[in-house]
Amino acid sequence: MLDVSLPDIRDLVRRRRPGYSLEAPFYTSQAVFDLDLEAIFDRHWIFVGVEPDVPEPGDYVTVGIGRQSIVIVRDDDNEVRAFHNLCRHRGARLLHEERGSVGNIVCRYHHWAYDLTGALLHAEHMGESFDRSCHGLVPVHLRNLEGLLFVCLADEPPADFDAMAATMAPFIAPHDLRHCKVAHRMDLIEEGNWKLTMENNRECYHCSNHPELGLSFFPPSFGFDPADISPEQAAEIAAYEAAKESFRARWAACGLPVGPIEDLVTRPTGFRTERLVLSGAGESQTMSTKIACRKLLGSFTEPKLGGLHFWTQPNSWHHFMSDHTVHFSAIPLSPERTLVRTWWLVHRDAVEGVDYDLERLTEVWIATNAQDGELVGYTQAGVRSKAYRPGPYSPFTESLVDAFTTWYVRRLSAHLGIADEPGCRAA
Amino acid sequence: MLDVSLPDIRDLVRRRRPGYSLEAPFYTSQAVFDLDLEAIFDRHWIFVGVEPDVPEPGDYVTVGIGRQSIVIVRDDDNEVRAFHNLCRHRGARLLHEERGSVGNIVCRYHHWAYDLTGALLHAEHMGESFDRSCHGLVPVHLRNLEGLLFVCLADEPPADFDAMAATMAPFIAPHDLRHCKVAHRMDLIEEGNWKLTMENNRECYHCSNHPELGLSFFPPSFGFDPADISPEQAAEIAAYEAAKESFRARWAACGLPVGPIEDLVTRPTGFRTERLVLSGAGESQTMSTKIACRKLLGSFTEPKLGGLHFWTQPNSWHHFMSDHTVHFSAIPLSPERTLVRTWWLVHRDAVEGVDYDLERLTEVWIATNAQDGELVGYTQAGVRSKAYRPGPYSPFTESLVDAFTTWYVRRLSAHLGIADEPGCRAA
Amino acid sequence: MLDVSLPDIRDLVRRRRPGYSLEAPFYTSQAVFDLDLEAIFDRHWIFVGVEPDVPEPGDYVTVGIGRQSIVIVRDDDNEVRAFHNLCRHRGARLLHEERGSVGNIVCRYHHWAYDLTGALLHAEHMGESFDRSCHGLVPVHLRNLEGLLFVCLADEPPADFDAMAATMAPFIAPHDLRHCKVAHRMDLIEEGNWKLTMENNRECYHCSNHPELGLSFFPPSFGFDPADISPEQAAEIAAYEAAKESFRARWAACGLPVGPIEDLVTRPTGFRTERLVLSGAGESQTMSTKIACRKLLGSFTEPKLGGLHFWTQPNSWHHFMSDHTVHFSAIPLSPERTLVRTWWLVHRDAVEGVDYDLERLTEVWIATNAQDGELVGYTQAGVRSKAYRPGPYSPFTESLVDAFTTWYVRRLSAHLGIADEPGCRAA
Repeated sequence: MLDVSLPDIRDLVRRRRPGYSLEAPFYTSQAVFDLDLEAIFDRHWIFVGVEPDVPEPGDYVTVGIGRQSIVIVRDDDNEVRAFHNLCRHRGARLLHEERGSVGNIVCRYHHWAYDLTGALLHAEHMGESFDRSCHGLVPVHLRNLEGLLFVCLADEPPADFDAMAATMAPFIAPHDLRHCKVAHRMDLIEEGNWKLTMENNRECYHCSNHPELGLSFFPPSFGFDPADISPEQAAEIAAYEAAKESFRARWAACGLPVGPIEDLVTRPTGFRTERLVLSGAGESQTMSTKIACRKLLGSFTEPKLGGLHFWTQPNSWHHFMSDHTVHFSAIPLSPERTLVRTWWLVHRDAVEGVDYDLERLTEVWIATNAQDGELVGYTQAGVRSKAYRPGPYSPFTESLVDAFTTWYVRRLSAHLGIADEPGCRAA
Repeated sequence: MLDVSLPDIRDLVRRRRPGYSLEAPFYTSQAVFDLDLEAIFDRHWIFVGVEPDVPEPGDYVTVGIGRQSIVIVRDDDNEVRAFHNLCRHRGARLLHEERGSVGNIVCRYHHWAYDLTGALLHAEHMGESFDRSCHGLVPVHLRNLEGLLFVCLADEPPADFDAMAATMAPFIAPHDLRHCKVAHRMDLIEEGNWKLTMENNRECYHCSNHPELGLSFFPPSFGFDPADISPEQAAEIAAYEAAKESFRARWAACGLPVGPIEDLVTRPTGFRTERLVLSGAGESQTMSTKIACRKLLGSFTEPKLGGLHFWTQPNSWHHFMSDHTVHFSAIPLSPERTLVRTWWLVHRDAVEGVDYDLERLTEVWIATNAQDGELVGYTQAGVRSKAYRPGPYSPFTESLVDAFTTWYVRRLSAHLGIADEPGCRAA
Repeated sequence: MLDVSLPDIRDLVRRRRPGYSLEAPFYTSQAVFDLDLEAIFDRHWIFVGVEPDVPEPGDYVTVGIGRQSIVIVRDDDNEVRAFHNLCRHRGARLLHEERGSVGNIVCRYHHWAYDLTGALLHAEHMGESFDRSCHGLVPVHLRNLEGLLFVCLADEPPADFDAMAATMAPFIAPHDLRHCKVAHRMDLIEEGNWKLTMENNRECYHCSNHPELGLSFFPPSFGFDPADISPEQAAEIAAYEAAKESFRARWAACGLPVGPIEDLVTRPTGFRTERLVLSGAGESQTMSTKIACRKLLGSFTEPKLGGLHFWTQPNSWHHFMSDHTVHFSAIPLSPERTLVRTWWLVHRDAVEGVDYDLERLTEVWIATNAQDGELVGYTQAGVRSKAYRPGPYSPFTESLVDAFTTWYVRRLSAHLGIADEPGCRAA
């Protein structure tokens, strides 16, 4: 395929039509994909894992972002750090497993050895003029938001992370992720562009495709057209409103902040949070709608707290319940493939088989992820066609999809130095 | 590989040497492949299937051409229609199976529903300002030539299809494809450029590679060098001429037009037909050279009718016999891969195991396709080499290969607006 | 990935920093890879095999270099010749097996037949004006250096091969490869750029990764930092020096030239040779350090001759011992994949199971190749990262790596017509 050029991309960005899905090259072009890595994934705060990935000093995980491999490691002073996973000698990758535990980080090739702060401890045969202090591991910016780990590959990361973190901490802190463990971790490769993965996440217009998730989900909670309500839908709306009233009282009684807080479009580190009403028993996103883990998180004693969602641009979403949390990271692999990594966290003292059953804990989101992956694949297959034209988002159920694509187009505009229309200023 | 540029392609087109195979980039370059899709497959009439693919209202098949997926569906008024297989909302592919049957066409993603004329029946939550009538399925031009289905992806398809169809109808109609059924369908991926697939089809210089097909085939029927005939070949020629005489009388008695009619080079919808003498029993392209299906096609009562071939540019060839027909469609997948889809049709009242044995019916062309696929792969492997130079076609046995490549180069010339040399005018 | 342009490559070549590994695009870019094929592999003498690959008239092997397939065949007059493996008619590949034996070379497609000198013997139906003498196989330059086969795809191969061959013949001739047979041949695909394969070969700084090879190897033989020697290393050095003294006497007694001869950097056909001290029994690169084949090569009667290494730019290395030889050829497959082909030769009268055990003969280098392949893959994974920067070679143990990369950069400079800095003249 003759790919689009940079001037083409500038035109595509300029003529983006609000309220509509993007033009095809945004989803299919290698050149746009390369720009996405450069302008979005190399410059924004990317959610890559959770503090319970590295519970002890020396524990590490490796994470790929584009062609970069990053090591996240807890050092001997209990600080979690991130480095580029390559030796300063001839560039060999240092750590080859997804996770493990090390004393120092030693390159297999010529045995250059680094400590867990990244300092080069040892390099043989390099002569007297060689300065070890100039050859430490290349550090990567890392932020730990109450146990959620974000990295930024830019030299100068967006400064607005800290304000976002300050806003979000009261929502997340009660779930006490630092005293959690990873009960399960799953990688799914979706056959679609990463933006289709994100657009799919930002709406529940499609949620009739999710029978398992639907058990704990009120359809009207993600919007509806008030001019077009069937009697059945009216009853659903009434039930939802009543449940919301009851949950609000419960959240207030527990001192839990509720939201919504939404700042998805104009800032680099766009985010959204909202406490969610769950249906049925209202406890958790499970098939029974009851908690899947008897040991509750943090200092919770009440299982029925509904849910809390947290989204970040460009690549994460999270669900927090009283008994467990679920975290999702989308990582672009190629123009038409995306890795979705999912973590299920429970209290670190919870015992599998006693306090929780792993299948009960994970079955809803394993099924939901698979369904979403299929829908993303269908959309990718369609947008490849020359007959594809951007279509209209529903103003009632897809406004947050539009918030994602609008954020994305503004970030590209800012990166490319494209002047904005009045009233549409890039952050 | 540093690919050729558009100016390079223009030079390649201009300096094409008649009577010789094409220069390597025509067979290997991604840029030429993209141009082939744009100039040839998106603008000409492409053979994609047969009416018996969709015998009943609601029956559909999906067909890929380049990155497009097309739905061919019989509507409730028995009209066969073609649409782009994607939803007008966010572009999701609508139908995911190769074939099936539907009432309406409903998108899995957000349940937008279309009827079989392509009209959007239903889209929830879109608000009052949304106009359903502007969001119907995107139609594709379709022509039904006595049961052979051709589509054209261009807005303005070549107008010469109808004249070709009028010429061909008397040849095809007696085989009455509309009252046939698909006895077998097979996909083969050849590891070569689509033009090598077509060049291979346009000559029988290579037919000693086809022992099964050779049982019903007279070697001299595809040309020979009269200056270089062995005694053995002279005997073959005499036998062929005698058989031809006898078949001509037989065809005249049945009122069957004979041809040849050949207009392969100068028109967009280039084609060729000719009634073929078969050897042995002379009935069919089978191992026994006798019919493979006892129930004859249309109103035929005489099994010994020889064959009829029909070729269309750019991508099809067909064999019609008294008892069955075989149809072939070549679809480019990448510069070095081509899908060859083959259909075997018999009378729809013929019963498998009673009137015909499927293995007997299909074995000759299954073997022949595999042999051709191997030869195409060998040629692709060779033309990749920097040492490859266009070689001379045999003036006696490969003139119709030259007709194909000449048609192709003229179509590219017309598309690129390249002025022709005197005496070599593009259509 | 937006690839580098030719001006980018020129800049990369110009700013190459001596003593450091190359910048990332040299290892990852498709454009550099294409240039490597054009400037290096299509223009230099490439080691492709050994005379015992084609012991008898009619024996052939096929070898791929880039997109070219080459046939190496012994003709009826016992001359070894090389041709492009494609038919002059429509370009079909002629020979499809890795090796075999033929009378003539006959194209499967239309039965054009060539003799083993490449002359076209037969082509049917081509008419009287067709001149067979203009349609012979395309020859490839071939040199046979005492049984080592090199080809050059250029019209005008580097003339310095003959001088190199004259220098090397006294080293290689005593091993009498022409009276050897191929005991084993192995292909390994390394997941790295071909230059990483070569760099890895040019140093033993990494040899603690090779426990099997280490059994016959003196660590200090490939350099060390004299300012930083442990007591253990001092003992190793002393043992090595003593062994070298003893071997030198032995080589002199046998009349074997010793070297080192090193001309790796400035000539097109860069090379190096040196007779090597082996440890333990000092006989061969085996686990026992003793010979693996009882039948010695040539007219050798003494098994303890240590080793002889021979390197050529751009793509080969060789080890000669008294009982067997091992030959390695690196062939680029893509920017990130390289074929390493290895041959083990023994005297042609040696009988497997009697004179040698195949596992004993091959186990050291099978293990070593696998270890090297893994290290190359690790390095490729690392240099893909944006965080990669060229790192310093050890001045003591990696100077010959620097000789390889410097040769490479000079050959690119010469090809691109880049003027050299004073004191850094391209050959």
